[in-house]
Amino acid sequence: MTNQQLIERRRKALGPAYSHFYDKPLHLVKGQGVWMWDDQGKRYLDCYNNVASVGHCHPHVVEALCGQARTLNTHTRYLHENVVGFAETLASKMPGELSVCMPVCTGTEANDLAVQIARVATGRHGCIVAEHSYHGNSTLVHDLSTSERFGDPDPDWLATVEPPDTYRGPFREGENDLGAKYAGLVSKSIQKLEARGHQLAVFMVESAWENQGIMQAPQDYLNHAAAFVRDAGGLVVADEVQSGYCRMGAHWWGFKHYDIIPDIVTLGKPMGNGHPLGAVVTTPAIVEKFAERYEYFNTFGGNPVSAAVGQAVIEVIDNENLLANATEVGAYLEGQLQELADRYDMIGELRGRGLFWGLDLVSDPDTREPISKEELRRITTDAAKQGTLVATMGRYGNVMKIRPPLVFSRDNVDHLINALDTVFARAN
Amino acid sequence: MTNQQLIERRRKALGPAYSHFYDKPLHLVKGQGVWMWDDQGKRYLDCYNNVASVGHCHPHVVEALCGQARTLNTHTRYLHENVVGFAETLASKMPGELSVCMPVCTGTEANDLAVQIARVATGRHGCIVAEHSYHGNSTLVHDLSTSERFGDPDPDWLATVEPPDTYRGPFREGENDLGAKYAGLVSKSIQKLEARGHQLAVFMVESAWENQGIMQAPQDYLNHAAAFVRDAGGLVVADEVQSGYCRMGAHWWGFKHYDIIPDIVTLGKPMGNGHPLGAVVTTPAIVEKFAERYEYFNTFGGNPVSAAVGQAVIEVIDNENLLANATEVGAYLEGQLQELADRYDMIGELRGRGLFWGLDLVSDPDTREPISKEELRRITTDAAKQGTLVATMGRYGNVMKIRPPLVFSRDNVDHLINALDTVFARAN
Repeated sequence: MTNQQLIERRRKALGPAYSHFYDKPLHLVKGQGVWMWDDQGKRYLDCYNNVASVGHCHPHVVEALCGQARTLNTHTRYLHENVVGFAETLASKMPGELSVCMPVCTGTEANDLAVQIARVATGRHGCIVAEHSYHGNSTLVHDLSTSERFGDPDPDWLATVEPPDTYRGPFREGENDLGAKYAGLVSKSIQKLEARGHQLAVFMVESAWENQGIMQAPQDYLNHAAAFVRDAGGLVVADEVQSGYCRMGAHWWGFKHYDIIPDIVTLGKPMGNGHPLGAVVTTPAIVEKFAERYEYFNTFGGNPVSAAVGQAVIEVIDNENLLANATEVGAYLEGQLQELADRYDMIGELRGRGLFWGLDLVSDPDTREPISKEELRRITTDAAKQGTLVATMGRYGNVMKIRPPLVFSRDNVDHLINALDTVFARAN
Repeated sequence: MTNQQLIERRRKALGPAYSHFYDKPLHLVKGQGVWMWDDQGKRYLDCYNNVASVGHCHPHVVEALCGQARTLNTHTRYLHENVVGFAETLASKMPGELSVCMPVCTGTEANDLAVQIARVATGRHGCIVAEHSYHGNSTLVHDLSTSERFGDPDPDWLATVEPPDTYRGPFREGENDLGAKYAGLVSKSIQKLEARGHQLAVFMVESAWENQGIMQAPQDYLNHAAAFVRDAGGLVVADEVQSGYCRMGAHWWGFKHYDIIPDIVTLGKPMGNGHPLGAVVTTPAIVEKFAERYEYFNTFGGNPVSAAVGQAVIEVIDNENLLANATEVGAYLEGQLQELADRYDMIGELRGRGLFWGLDLVSDPDTREPISKEELRRITTDAAKQGTLVATMGRYGNVMKIRPPLVFSRDNVDHLINALDTVFARAN
């Protein structure tokens, strides 16, 4: 069967709502560490994957999955040590009072549950998210995902806020008090909600601002913003689906880079190295209020197999020192990407931390006019032809997303930089 | 560590929103076929499980899981044969135009996505569900789960309808035109919605009425109801999380017992034999309308590992003739349960099909006064002590739920009946 035939079967079987990466869709059949192989045996360096975060098919994770799947898979209405041990291990990575873990199956489920908990705990309904946000795909979380709006009006209980984009936003690098200025916009959004009769329950923040094209916020932005949120009686929900699990280097969590402790943390993608696993982590005080009114049960969430997988992923991160690797290889990657940025006018700005970087591509470095998303898609398709997988993000679809597994090495960085050098030279 | 210590650790690590089965929570450590074992080595016959539906730790399913987990786990933005093949296989089990399958991770995600699709396809917003419904736990699906309301008002776009309860409902066995009468209530709910300014998008029906304590609806009820729904411009969404996958015997799907073809079908629990897997199945025409406005992507939904598991479960059902088994052993189970019902006044009514039965327990067979849920919990706890796992359901928490894996045998039926005989004799 040709790939064209598979694409046609796929369109019929899954329907037309699914898209492909790259102009020529890849048919991948094998993964190992940072490498993937297509159906022709061609090898690709995976520089875009925070799902297979400890490396494709990591043997310790696969062994944990298979061992438990052979023994027992059941739900949380029976006692089982796996889910308790996993929740305790996860909590041990969290700061402050964040000691209660509620396992779910996806990041969407985590964000949806977090809002439910926050609304019950605060007795309020209003939410604030960043412009061009993406937090998942349930009905509620779709409402919180303003990048997916396509002309639908925002719900009345939602206010948006400009992300701290110091490259193209209303306040830019070089100005004074950038953190306070961007946090002031959060305060204004709270007032907008209140003027519409909605008290604030949730300020949901993704501290990598991935969907917006990665932001490095002014250092004091989140502390200022959190103060406004808490003064108004709301809770800070950190969506760490993208920025968590050592992704940004130096710390386990993205929010730690800004020295805040959220009230609720949501987790997804990298937790199970591909196995469907997510979680809400919060404080005993907050969850007590929720539990006064509601029980929570998730048929698959926290089953012994998923818990074994979650535990194994954390063990790999600890045993292989992947936080240190993300920090050290991340620093090398930053340096190499900066050199590339210095050589190509098309790279308007390099932003990121650890093993999560964005190259903001522009047609004119002075006006900062973004290249078209079609142009970036041509570039990422060309990189895939070179055997290097990168992706796209950002409000204008012009930011190249580089987000390799945590086991990425300096050699892998060199391979990536060579490939990017080739494709940028061709694109210029 | 004692179980009491594990319970305390669990309450701290997962928080207080989780409950246990049975007055003395079970600590299960192993499962094989229809059997489970606790931490003391005691064996239990699992008569309550449509998750491990083809039997605990089925080797063909475990092998499919492990084989693919060792090879590649990635997402649907790359081409992969597994998800296409699985979607095709699942569609081949469906009647009519139900040929498009969108894989997700849970039944909740399936129901949430189904409503999103139906609302876009119809351009309408209103929903109708049965009283005391349960469809899942996202914010939207919680709104559709009226049994979890705890005093909160229904949203304005929701109307409820009495389920076809011919034992305690407004129209009872012996009356004429029961199907038309219960369907008339659906028509009234449509009018109520329209009077509030909401046109009907979705009539969501779970054709086992599990949460209400299992109903056997009048044969023509769903056809009459569907006609009202479609005349009003709405879609029929069959939530087959409980009733699907051969559970009710004779047919793969619960709705087939009523000879209707829904517009959208949602699936969950038994699809992955414990692995987090769900799906929305619908027609090309409906999904085309959705895809005109929205893209759909679910990070874990339809990954090659989940698809391999889903395919393996269907293979086991086909290869081991589990549909025929559910029909034949189900008929034997019905006969044995009926004998038990004839002997104990406490059993007010036996309802169900195939391998899904409810014993409606009453303190007085004439008034049909339900026993208290505490009393049933004592009975199911006693059954667990006898090594037999059953559960509870129903509007009054008084219906014993018997829902064994599809591999249940006549010997297993005899074991179950002996245990129930013992506990009912003691409870009388």
